[in-house]
Amino acid sequence: MNIRYVGRQLGLLMLVLSAIMAIVAVWAAVQVLRGHPEEIAARNALLLSVGAGLALAGGLRLLGAGLGGQLARREALLLVAAGWLAGAAVAALPFYIWHGYTDNGSARDPAFASWINCYFESISGFTTTGATVLTDIESLPRSLLLWRATTHWLGGLGIVVLFVAVLPMLGVGSKRAFRVEAPGPTPDGVTPRIQETARILWLIYCGLTVAEILTLKLLGLGWYSSVCHTFATLATGGFSTLNSSLGQMDRAAIDTAVIVFMLLAGVNFGLYYQLIHRRWRAVRDDPELRAYLVIMAVGCLVVCLSIYRVPIVTTTGDEVSPSWGTTLRYGVFQVVALQTTTGFCTAEFDHWPFVAKAVLITLMFVGASAGSTGGGVKVVRCLVAAKVLLTELERVFRPNVVRPVRLGKSTIEPEQRLAAVSYLLGIVVLFGIGTVLIKMFEADQSISLVTAATAAAATLNNIGPGLAEVSAVDNYAWFSTPSKIVMSLLMIIGRLEVFAIVVLFHPRFWREE
Amino acid sequence: MNIRYVGRQLGLLMLVLSAIMAIVAVWAAVQVLRGHPEEIAARNALLLSVGAGLALAGGLRLLGAGLGGQLARREALLLVAAGWLAGAAVAALPFYIWHGYTDNGSARDPAFASWINCYFESISGFTTTGATVLTDIESLPRSLLLWRATTHWLGGLGIVVLFVAVLPMLGVGSKRAFRVEAPGPTPDGVTPRIQETARILWLIYCGLTVAEILTLKLLGLGWYSSVCHTFATLATGGFSTLNSSLGQMDRAAIDTAVIVFMLLAGVNFGLYYQLIHRRWRAVRDDPELRAYLVIMAVGCLVVCLSIYRVPIVTTTGDEVSPSWGTTLRYGVFQVVALQTTTGFCTAEFDHWPFVAKAVLITLMFVGASAGSTGGGVKVVRCLVAAKVLLTELERVFRPNVVRPVRLGKSTIEPEQRLAAVSYLLGIVVLFGIGTVLIKMFEADQSISLVTAATAAAATLNNIGPGLAEVSAVDNYAWFSTPSKIVMSLLMIIGRLEVFAIVVLFHPRFWREE
Repeated sequence: MNIRYVGRQLGLLMLVLSAIMAIVAVWAAVQVLRGHPEEIAARNALLLSVGAGLALAGGLRLLGAGLGGQLARREALLLVAAGWLAGAAVAALPFYIWHGYTDNGSARDPAFASWINCYFESISGFTTTGATVLTDIESLPRSLLLWRATTHWLGGLGIVVLFVAVLPMLGVGSKRAFRVEAPGPTPDGVTPRIQETARILWLIYCGLTVAEILTLKLLGLGWYSSVCHTFATLATGGFSTLNSSLGQMDRAAIDTAVIVFMLLAGVNFGLYYQLIHRRWRAVRDDPELRAYLVIMAVGCLVVCLSIYRVPIVTTTGDEVSPSWGTTLRYGVFQVVALQTTTGFCTAEFDHWPFVAKAVLITLMFVGASAGSTGGGVKVVRCLVAAKVLLTELERVFRPNVVRPVRLGKSTIEPEQRLAAVSYLLGIVVLFGIGTVLIKMFEADQSISLVTAATAAAATLNNIGPGLAEVSAVDNYAWFSTPSKIVMSLLMIIGRLEVFAIVVLFHPRFWREE
Repeated sequence: MNIRYVGRQLGLLMLVLSAIMAIVAVWAAVQVLRGHPEEIAARNALLLSVGAGLALAGGLRLLGAGLGGQLARREALLLVAAGWLAGAAVAALPFYIWHGYTDNGSARDPAFASWINCYFESISGFTTTGATVLTDIESLPRSLLLWRATTHWLGGLGIVVLFVAVLPMLGVGSKRAFRVEAPGPTPDGVTPRIQETARILWLIYCGLTVAEILTLKLLGLGWYSSVCHTFATLATGGFSTLNSSLGQMDRAAIDTAVIVFMLLAGVNFGLYYQLIHRRWRAVRDDPELRAYLVIMAVGCLVVCLSIYRVPIVTTTGDEVSPSWGTTLRYGVFQVVALQTTTGFCTAEFDHWPFVAKAVLITLMFVGASAGSTGGGVKVVRCLVAAKVLLTELERVFRPNVVRPVRLGKSTIEPEQRLAAVSYLLGIVVLFGIGTVLIKMFEADQSISLVTAATAAAATLNNIGPGLAEVSAVDNYAWFSTPSKIVMSLLMIIGRLEVFAIVVLFHPRFWREE
C-alpha cells in the first residue's frame, strides 16, 4: 500500500475543496461590505478555514512530493475514505471557528461550541443526510448556512467525482475512485472515458441546479434562499435555512416545485445523458426508472389514504384541516422527500397513523435510483433482490429449471445477484448494530427503541429525520458524543455504500498478498 | 399436479396422527378409572377427536382410492403443507370439544371456547413454538395437557419424518417430503436410504426422551410432569404444565438438567449417529457444532455480565437477590432456552437491561443447529452468510482473488451461498411483514412496537415468549383473531423453513410447465 502517494492525491482533493470554500468566503466578504456586520465572524472563520485547508493540502503534497505511482484498488478506496473523513473535518472548521469568534457563547445556538457537533453537521452535509445539530438555524449568519448548503451540493455527486472531472491526474485510479464514490451500481451507457463521464454528470447537475434556482426565484423566494434550498434538494440533502424546514414557507407552489426537483434528483443521471442524445426508448424502458416511479406512486397512495381525515400538523405546529387537497400536498411531499432520501419536511409525520409511518420507513430503506444523488439501498438492488428471492423460492419446487434473472433486457449475472442480496443483508446488519449501539450509548436518557432505530435508519440511508425523538421537528443535538460518532460513521457508510469505509476494518485490507 | 394422490397420502398421515392421539385417549380413560372425574370431559373429547381423525383419514383414502402415483416435488411440498395445516386442525379438536363438554364456561380458563385459540395452540405445539393462549394452564385436565405436550414431541422431528419412518409407502416422494420437513440443510452422513435415516433419527430422539424422563424423575418430579416437560424440552417447544413455566419449580438441579437437554436438542441429530459409530473426529471437527457452542457461550457471558447486580425477578414474581450463583443460573438458562428456541422461562427477562435483551433477541434469530429440533435461522446458515459477507467485502478491493467459502473441510458452492444469504434476507422480510401486520391488526389496543416485533420474532423463530406484552409471564390470548392467524402462519413458515408454505403463494407453483 503506497500510503504517501495516497496522501499526495488527498492533498489535491483538499485543494479543490478549499478553492470552493474560498468562493463562499468571498461571498461572505461581499456581504460584510454591503453592511451586514453579523457576517464578519463567519467571513473570518471561512477565510481561516480556507487557509487551514490550503496548508493541509500543501503539507500533504510536500509529504508525497515527487512520488509517481498508480492508484491500485486499495489505494483508491483509501483515498476516497480519507478524502471524505478529512474533507468533512476541513468543512467543519468554519462552524467551529465561527463559534469561537462570537464572544464565546453570544451565539443563540450553542451547538457549534463542540467539535463533534461541527463534524457531525459537516458529515451530515457531505453525505447529503441533512440531520442537523442546530435548534435555532435562523440565528446563524447567512454565509455559514450557505457553506452548510454547499457541503450538500458537493457531496451530492461527490467530491471525488468533481475532482476527477476537474483534474485529470489520477490516471487509471480515477476510474476506481469514481466507482467507489458514485452512488449505486455504476451508471452505464454514458461514455467509456471516466473523466468525460464525470464532466457530463457535473454538467447535468449544474443544469438542474440552475433550473431549480430560477424556478424558486420565480416563485418568489430570494436568491439566497433559492440557492440554499436548491443545493439541498438536488443533492437529496435536506438542510434548510429555516427552523421548521420547508413547512415554514407554507406555499403549495413551492412544495410542488420541490417535489418535482426531488423526484428528478432521485433518477439515475445516466438517463439524462440518454435524454440529451434523444435515446427516448432507453429512458422509457429503463426498469429501475419504472420501478422507482411505481414504488413512489404506491407509497403516495397508501400514505395519502391512511392520513385522509387525520388532521395534519405542519412542522411549524399549525394544524391543517384535512381535505383531499391538503392530504395530497403533505402526503406526497413526505413520501417523495423520504424515498429520495432528501429529508425535507412540511408535516410532522410522527403523528401519522402506523401504516403511513411503516411505509415511510420502508421507503427510506428502498431509497432512490443508482447513479442519482439519493441514498438508501437503491431501487435497482431491491429489484434484483426481490427477483432473486422469487427465483430461490421457485428452485424449491423446480430445481432443474434454470431461470435467468432479468432486468429489462439484460441478464443479471450470478455474481451480481449475490452482491445485491448480500448488500441488503449487510445494510440490515449495520442497521441492527447501529440501533443497538445508539440505544446503549443513550442508556442514561432511556430513549425509545423507535428513536434509536429510526435515528440509525435515517443516518444510514442518508435521510435526516426519523420518528419519535428524531422526528421532523426535532434535531440531533441532544445525543451523546459516542452516539454522534456512530451516526457519523453510519452516514459515511451509507453514502459510500458500505464498502469504502467498512473494508478498512477487513483483516485482509492492510495485508499485502 | 396430482391433488387426489396427495389427498390419499394425507389420509395416511392423519391415520398415524389419530393412532398416537388414541394412546393419549387411553391414558385419559385409565385416569378416569383411577378416580379422576375431572378427566372425563377430556377423555371424551380425545376419543371423539380420534374418531374424527379416523373419519377424515378414511375419507381422504376413499377419495384417492386405487390411485397409484409418485410424489413429485410439488406434490411433496403440498403434502407437507397440507399435512401440517390439517394435522394441527385435528390436534386442536380435543381442546375445542373439551371446552364444549365442560358445561359451556365452567372451565376456569375460557381460551378454548374459540376455535382460533385452539388452532393457535395446536400449531404452536406442532411447530414447537410454545406460545400459549392459556392463562390458567393448571386448571386444565392432565390428559389434555399431555396431548398438548405430545404435539410438541411429534412436531420436534416432524410428523412426516415419523410417517416416513413408520410407513414406507411414499417411494421416491418420501425423500422429498422428508427434506422439506427436516429442519435445516439436510443432515448428511447418516445413511443414503431415507427410511433408514428417518428411523435412526426417531430412535435417537426416543433415546434422549427416555434419558430426560428418567433424569427428571430422579430429581423428584412425578412421571406425568417428567414426561410433559421432556416432550417440551427435546422438541425445543416450551409448553409447561405450570402457569409460571419452569420458574415455578424453583429447583436449581432441574434448571441445570433442562439446560443440558435443551443444549442436546439443539445439536444436529446426525452427529449423534456419528457418535454411535464412534466417529469422534467428525463430531469434534463439525464447524456448526463449534459455532453453536461458541455463540451460546458468548451469549451467556454477555447476558450474565449485563445482569450481574440486577435483581432478578422470576416468572412467579419473586425477587432473587443478585449473586454470581443466581446470575449464572438464570442468565444461562434464559440464553440456552431462547437460542435453542425452546422458550422455557425461569426469569422475567423483559426487566433485564437493554444489552441482555438485545443479545437474547439476536440469538432467537440465530437459532439452533440444522438437523436438530430447534428453530430460528440455524447456526450453519448464519455461518455461511457471515463468510459470504466477508468475502463480498474483500471482492471490493481484491476482485481478482477468488477465495472459496469453506465450512470445515467442505467448500460451499455458489448456489448454497446465495441460498443462505437469501434465506436470511427472506426471514428479515417476513419478520418485517409480520411485525407490521400484527401492529396494524392491534391498532385498537395500541400495542407497542416492541410487543409486535417480538411477537413476530418469537413465532417466526418458534420460540414462544418475547418482550413487553408477550414476555415470559404473559400469553397470546389477548391478540385479535387476524393477529393470531398471522402468527399461526409465521409459526408454520418458521418451522417448515419458509418454503413449504410460502411456495404455495408463488404464481408459478400451481402452473404446469
